[in-house]
Amino acid sequence: MPYFDAASSVPLHPVAREALIASLDEGWADPARLHREGRRARVLLDAARETAAEAVGCRPDELVFTPSGARALHTGIAGALAGRRRAGRRLVVSAVEHSAVLHAAAAHEAAGGAVTEVPVGRTGRVAAADFAAALGEDTALACLQSANHEVGTEQPVTEVAGLCSGAGVPLLVDAAQSLAWGRAGEGWSLLAGSAHKWGGPAGVGLLAVRKGVRFVAPPPTDERESARSPGFENIPAIVAAAASLRAVRAEADAAAERLRVLVDRVRARVPELVPDVEVVGDPVRRLPNLVTFSCLYVDGEALLHALDRLGFSVSSGSSCTSSTLTPSHVLRAMGVLSEGNIRLSLPPVPGPSAEEDVERFLEVLPEAVREVRGQLGAPAGPLGKPEEAAASEAYAAPEEPDERGEPRQEAAGEERTASAEPSHVTVDALGSLCPLPVIELAKAIGDVPVGGVITVLADDEAARVDIPAWCEMRGQEYLGADGTEFRVRRLD
Amino acid sequence: MPYFDAASSVPLHPVAREALIASLDEGWADPARLHREGRRARVLLDAARETAAEAVGCRPDELVFTPSGARALHTGIAGALAGRRRAGRRLVVSAVEHSAVLHAAAAHEAAGGAVTEVPVGRTGRVAAADFAAALGEDTALACLQSANHEVGTEQPVTEVAGLCSGAGVPLLVDAAQSLAWGRAGEGWSLLAGSAHKWGGPAGVGLLAVRKGVRFVAPPPTDERESARSPGFENIPAIVAAAASLRAVRAEADAAAERLRVLVDRVRARVPELVPDVEVVGDPVRRLPNLVTFSCLYVDGEALLHALDRLGFSVSSGSSCTSSTLTPSHVLRAMGVLSEGNIRLSLPPVPGPSAEEDVERFLEVLPEAVREVRGQLGAPAGPLGKPEEAAASEAYAAPEEPDERGEPRQEAAGEERTASAEPSHVTVDALGSLCPLPVIELAKAIGDVPVGGVITVLADDEAARVDIPAWCEMRGQEYLGADGTEFRVRRLD
Repeated sequence: MPYFDAASSVPLHPVAREALIASLDEGWADPARLHREGRRARVLLDAARETAAEAVGCRPDELVFTPSGARALHTGIAGALAGRRRAGRRLVVSAVEHSAVLHAAAAHEAAGGAVTEVPVGRTGRVAAADFAAALGEDTALACLQSANHEVGTEQPVTEVAGLCSGAGVPLLVDAAQSLAWGRAGEGWSLLAGSAHKWGGPAGVGLLAVRKGVRFVAPPPTDERESARSPGFENIPAIVAAAASLRAVRAEADAAAERLRVLVDRVRARVPELVPDVEVVGDPVRRLPNLVTFSCLYVDGEALLHALDRLGFSVSSGSSCTSSTLTPSHVLRAMGVLSEGNIRLSLPPVPGPSAEEDVERFLEVLPEAVREVRGQLGAPAGPLGKPEEAAASEAYAAPEEPDERGEPRQEAAGEERTASAEPSHVTVDALGSLCPLPVIELAKAIGDVPVGGVITVLADDEAARVDIPAWCEMRGQEYLGADGTEFRVRRLD
Repeated sequence: MPYFDAASSVPLHPVAREALIASLDEGWADPARLHREGRRARVLLDAARETAAEAVGCRPDELVFTPSGARALHTGIAGALAGRRRAGRRLVVSAVEHSAVLHAAAAHEAAGGAVTEVPVGRTGRVAAADFAAALGEDTALACLQSANHEVGTEQPVTEVAGLCSGAGVPLLVDAAQSLAWGRAGEGWSLLAGSAHKWGGPAGVGLLAVRKGVRFVAPPPTDERESARSPGFENIPAIVAAAASLRAVRAEADAAAERLRVLVDRVRARVPELVPDVEVVGDPVRRLPNLVTFSCLYVDGEALLHALDRLGFSVSSGSSCTSSTLTPSHVLRAMGVLSEGNIRLSLPPVPGPSAEEDVERFLEVLPEAVREVRGQLGAPAGPLGKPEEAAASEAYAAPEEPDERGEPRQEAAGEERTASAEPSHVTVDALGSLCPLPVIELAKAIGDVPVGGVITVLADDEAARVDIPAWCEMRGQEYLGADGTEFRVRRLD
């Protein structure tokens, strides 16, 4: 059963499993105690710190373990902001940081601080010059991920670190997606990571703070982990995390080479196999194991379930997922389609059947997309994608009414009956969730002549991302939105 | 090798070990994901929450898992204070709470809040009436431990909870020491616990917040654990924690009965076997597995090391421990001797040799204390403890100079040479660490007549606790301190 959601979490690396079990008997005591059980636990903890520090590229006394990657980011950001309070209260982050960074930024703002988001281009990469331009006199801290968790784009960490250093601003790097590959960049002041992303157990994050970086850990703290991460240390898990980081790194280059070939194949073949797909993320400067694409006229969650039934575990940044009604902030910041979004992230230790699994995925994907599109009544016809009219037969009309609120296209009838080809059509998709507003737009645009305007009424959050993205993909002109009114001019 | 430090941490319960290993393969994925691995992880997490909630006595949706007991307390206190901000900013805590509570209280105070500490009696127990008296109009939250971690005294939780309820103040109970026994009390609004205290793995705390209690989790949070405890859930450890809590509780009554007999034996026999010992904590209302005593004229850390060499792992609240130079705040609040402090806490699942281990401990303890006293030059003679003069031969004079700064008793010479029995003697113990100032006091008090006064100059933190405690034990009159000058009147 192929698991393609490594960017969320990966199974325990065999080395982690072995180290975890082996240290259950030696690592349960309080390392702050002076008795033999405490001293044994302390020895394990110290050794794990040395191993992890070597893998991260810092001194052992610069590294503390935290209960998770999110907590490492929260503590790192709060601590650096507090340490640099005299310099100012501005935090600079890229627009595509992990939500843990953005949550910390929101907390900072709620407490009276200021936050600047640096925009990214269509590939999800920040321009180092844009990042540098955002650094002001009052900037206490800057945050940049090593690579994006949703689209795999690697950020110019080393270049940005140099510019931050020049501006006297510490840079915190969220290296969660990159530590397994040893590609976190150079020159950072703080770095955070998460063990369950590299095959270590859950419950272990790490935070490195370079000597000389002003840091005041957010209270309350205690005497543990250099007074930076309170609470009893989870030593067996820490030992397992450190051991597996070393093991994964030893295999990383060979694994990356092998996975890059598979990901290249997905990137090339998905658009050939499935019409109306946008592969997103930087085509070159990217993680070796991750590829993301979005499918027009597809409900991402429905496609995820269809793939799950076929035995493939993937994730989706679509707003149509259970945990959220807003589309991925990453895709939104990139200005790319969020509907029908699928992320494949292959485990950093590829199994023997990895290639076969990817081939099977490519085999089943087209039919899975076709089915979801059919259920939603995705548009067929010349404006769908004229050159692939043959393939568009699959865009069948819906056989059953949509469960989530049928779009009231009839509401536009007043204008549509006024002429066979009115110069302005309104489609009412209020109450419809993604991808229905875009489907209605695509179906109705043929009703206006070239040069005519279509207005879509939509209150789903995803429409703000997907209507402009559709225009970009389809070569139509997006005229902008006013509240829940989106206006599009037909160009061809 | 007997391990008597269960109040710090206990080895994994066999049930925890089994559950942990069994769930490594099923519980590594992200429970927020919709794919089968995510759903499997979610099922494990939900089941563990139900098990833990049942053991705690709350609804599953009232309980979240945190990365540690300390973090559960930090989050619980901050969240309840924020939720009740309109009611006021006062936090009421007992003086003998765990440092995690006191650290949270200090953070609250540093952020502009107010803290009231409710004093305890000589057994370490708060009087419910004192606690109620501390609740004011502006009290947002009150905290009371179920039982004290250093001396085992159980607090009147149920009674205090009733009084808090009457005053409209939520009560947070730190149940870390009591969950294994099912004796956390009734009527609490919030409750915190820590798995490694009951035989679960490290990395798991729990926080229960009753429905209806206003609670605003400290930011940043995320969507995990009801937005109360951010970061990826450590599911295998959570599963193990819940399973072992249930298992330990099933065995708790039988274990408690067995351990109470052993602890009673230690409480009764230590003062018979060792001169000048004070057994501290409530003799009846106490944890079944914990006993603490303090030995006059003993360096707690030295005794701990001596016992460690003899194969016994214990802990000490003396200031002479490696991690701190201040004596236990618990012993200080109780007004009992902090020097030569030893805590025995037997594992809640007593091994087959528990009784034998305790007997062996009682066998070796007297000689271990004698040795440490000998090395320190503890006082002999009639004022040591007249009725046990025979035993006092062990209080030998030091054969080598003390390493930690020899007390300059000669400094008192001016007055001492003025008369054979001057009415006022000064002992200069500045720079000497505990227990030396008390040893010097005991040696010198015979130099003044009954009714005379002796002044001890001491700058060690422990002197403030131990000089009054010595007077109480010895029936001398403590006249008070002025900075580093402690004055004592000889009464017999």
